[in-house]
Amino acid sequence: MLVERNKILTETIIRLMRRGSVARLAKIISKVHAADLPAVFSSLSVSNQRKLFQLIHDSEKKGFVVSELDEDISLNIIEGLSLEELAEIIENMPSDDSVAFIRMLPQDKADAVLGMMKKTESEEVEGLLQYKDDTAGSIMIPDFIALKENMTAKDVIESLQSKEYLDVEMPFYIYVVDEKERLVGVSSLRQFVVVPSSTPLHNFMMKEVISVTTDMDQEEVAKIVARYNILAVPVVDEDEKMVGIVTVDDVIDVFREEATEDILKMAGVGEEFVETKSIGRSTRIRLPWLFASFLGGIIAIFIIGYFEESLKQVSYLALFIPVIMGMGGNIGIQSSTIVVRGIATGRINIRDLWSVVSKELAIGIILGVFYGVLLGTLVQFRYSIDVAISVAIGVVSSMTVAALVGSFMPMMFARIHIDPAVATGPFVTSSIDILSVLIYFQVATILLGI
Amino acid sequence: MLVERNKILTETIIRLMRRGSVARLAKIISKVHAADLPAVFSSLSVSNQRKLFQLIHDSEKKGFVVSELDEDISLNIIEGLSLEELAEIIENMPSDDSVAFIRMLPQDKADAVLGMMKKTESEEVEGLLQYKDDTAGSIMIPDFIALKENMTAKDVIESLQSKEYLDVEMPFYIYVVDEKERLVGVSSLRQFVVVPSSTPLHNFMMKEVISVTTDMDQEEVAKIVARYNILAVPVVDEDEKMVGIVTVDDVIDVFREEATEDILKMAGVGEEFVETKSIGRSTRIRLPWLFASFLGGIIAIFIIGYFEESLKQVSYLALFIPVIMGMGGNIGIQSSTIVVRGIATGRINIRDLWSVVSKELAIGIILGVFYGVLLGTLVQFRYSIDVAISVAIGVVSSMTVAALVGSFMPMMFARIHIDPAVATGPFVTSSIDILSVLIYFQVATILLGI
Repeated sequence: MLVERNKILTETIIRLMRRGSVARLAKIISKVHAADLPAVFSSLSVSNQRKLFQLIHDSEKKGFVVSELDEDISLNIIEGLSLEELAEIIENMPSDDSVAFIRMLPQDKADAVLGMMKKTESEEVEGLLQYKDDTAGSIMIPDFIALKENMTAKDVIESLQSKEYLDVEMPFYIYVVDEKERLVGVSSLRQFVVVPSSTPLHNFMMKEVISVTTDMDQEEVAKIVARYNILAVPVVDEDEKMVGIVTVDDVIDVFREEATEDILKMAGVGEEFVETKSIGRSTRIRLPWLFASFLGGIIAIFIIGYFEESLKQVSYLALFIPVIMGMGGNIGIQSSTIVVRGIATGRINIRDLWSVVSKELAIGIILGVFYGVLLGTLVQFRYSIDVAISVAIGVVSSMTVAALVGSFMPMMFARIHIDPAVATGPFVTSSIDILSVLIYFQVATILLGI
Repeated sequence: MLVERNKILTETIIRLMRRGSVARLAKIISKVHAADLPAVFSSLSVSNQRKLFQLIHDSEKKGFVVSELDEDISLNIIEGLSLEELAEIIENMPSDDSVAFIRMLPQDKADAVLGMMKKTESEEVEGLLQYKDDTAGSIMIPDFIALKENMTAKDVIESLQSKEYLDVEMPFYIYVVDEKERLVGVSSLRQFVVVPSSTPLHNFMMKEVISVTTDMDQEEVAKIVARYNILAVPVVDEDEKMVGIVTVDDVIDVFREEATEDILKMAGVGEEFVETKSIGRSTRIRLPWLFASFLGGIIAIFIIGYFEESLKQVSYLALFIPVIMGMGGNIGIQSSTIVVRGIATGRINIRDLWSVVSKELAIGIILGVFYGVLLGTLVQFRYSIDVAISVAIGVVSSMTVAALVGSFMPMMFARIHIDPAVATGPFVTSSIDILSVLIYFQVATILLGI
């Protein structure tokens, strides 16, 4: 349905752009929900992206669209905008988005734009810019409702009607702070319609507040919001002063981003999504990741080269290289994927190294014996029983080693604080390839006495 | 931090269980947040899981814990519970969780438990049970606030204080329905503190409401909630009558589940997370997925067998099988992963088949030429120039074909409504293995004249 809707909107806009019906385009764009526009942009040519963007009249809508677009499309559009236009767009964005947006700009442009913005706005943004990327500080919103605990329900409702809080994006929780702005409690907006109006905040606020620190990794923050099913989590600085909130909509984005990153890393394609980038850039990003595999291949050349004399005598040994490598590679990917995803979702505890690895090892042996015996049985119809046994042992050992390496490597990496997703993909498959080939030829030459 | 916290809690509980300090355990459990308990259970033995569960006294906490646990742990705990206990736990769960919970029970137990529940509760659950798994209907909550449009802000606040709505889990939106219960508008709780109390709902409600239907796939629902940054989306039945809401916390779960499913499918390990299952069950789930790879290996045996005479003459041809297969396999995984994830996140439009595939093809050729020339250069130091050229062409064609197959297959599958994630993993890698080996030997025999 969402796909259908995108499709119709995109086709209509492309048709109108081709015809140059500017007035009709502007009308459609003013009516359509801002959230429906980013999908349209990714189907347009570079020059049409800029043209369409100019047809958005509302600055807030512009800001929303540009912050939801893929980075390369945003950059293209930004290049076509004057500093005044940029400043106006940024002023109309929620502050967390404007920070992400300014981070995309080249330094000189960023400084110029900050200089043109209203002072209160630019100070807020500059304050947020000091936090490191991918931390709670970098994704938090500095607008929230924080009141003192001696206020009554009635006072609170009056404050909420004041101008100060009208801009607050997600006014679902009322945070309670002490005289030093330290977080001491929380209440939901809901409470105020059910308690008598003279009740002071400290009588009905919840005193155990879940909070995060500004330097906490965004993935950790997301897990906390998900675990406790809350709509926003307060962020405190090193003095326990409340400085912002991270809202659930950003948490969704974090989870989706992190899942994409993990998937890409596991496949050995860097961590940024490369599809929308140019062919040249994609190639540059993907090239080094293939090097592990190349190096593995070179090592395999030397290993097989070492057995070349045997190969000359028994040339059909080469026939079984692909099946042995393939079976090892595939079970290795299974094991490493299960472990990497298990760690990411919290189903696997990195302390359980031996229980996880030994389980994978057991599964590797069982599946190895199954496929090894199956292959050996087929092979002995055409070749000698010694060949069949060599091939069977090759499959068993390759699959066993693969399950072991595939589960051990990510567990080990996670323990020494290296992202386990990087340990999967090319590195695991290359090491498995090398080990499989080595064991197979070693076993075969011994058994066949060559 | 979250990891630290889990670790300390888990260790404390394990220590106390070993000592049998029941009173202290019960005290800790009553104090701890229910959301912190599931992580503890996964580190306990099967019998200790049941014991610890019995120490939770609050039924609501019991319900929360059991619905957040992995399925095999839940099933273990459920087996140790009487029907009365089950009914009590289910009555204290949010209705979407109780539906998921009853779906796990064997049919006879489910019927018995439904029979023991209060009639209003069991009717609600039975109503939800009719919706198919993974649809909006199956994850929605039937409790929401729906009022008529002629009510004033003051009337609304009074209604909110009534008993009827005290149980509503996420009271952030006030939905407006007509006399036939059809959805006509929405307002946020926020509005009521800012509008004059005599204003009728229809004056300040938003008339364009984003809604979903009961049969919509949960992934689609999640994408809508994420796209429009809303906290809950109303669900309507075929008569446009509003029947429930899907809340943002469930949306987070959907995204995480779907990402895990995609990752597992891409690695060829089914779609359910198998780590926590027994070795026997894991093995059974993983075994068939390896068959594609096995079959691919058998086909490769025949292909190389076909060239056995050539191999006897030029035995070192076998040395390059691993590097050619490995390079093809890895770039194939890159391409298919980018396409599968791109489709899932909406960055790739399945209508753009040719532009996506031709881009991947171009990248495959560039990277293929790079690594092919590199390998050829190295090879010609030891072997003849003809061998070097054969190997180089082998790498180029293997990588080109891999990028083509790896991007084309998932795009094609998505178009004919087969999950593209299934098209990745074992199937793609096996076909690439076969094609690579075939092209390499074909080229080599022609060039070397054997």
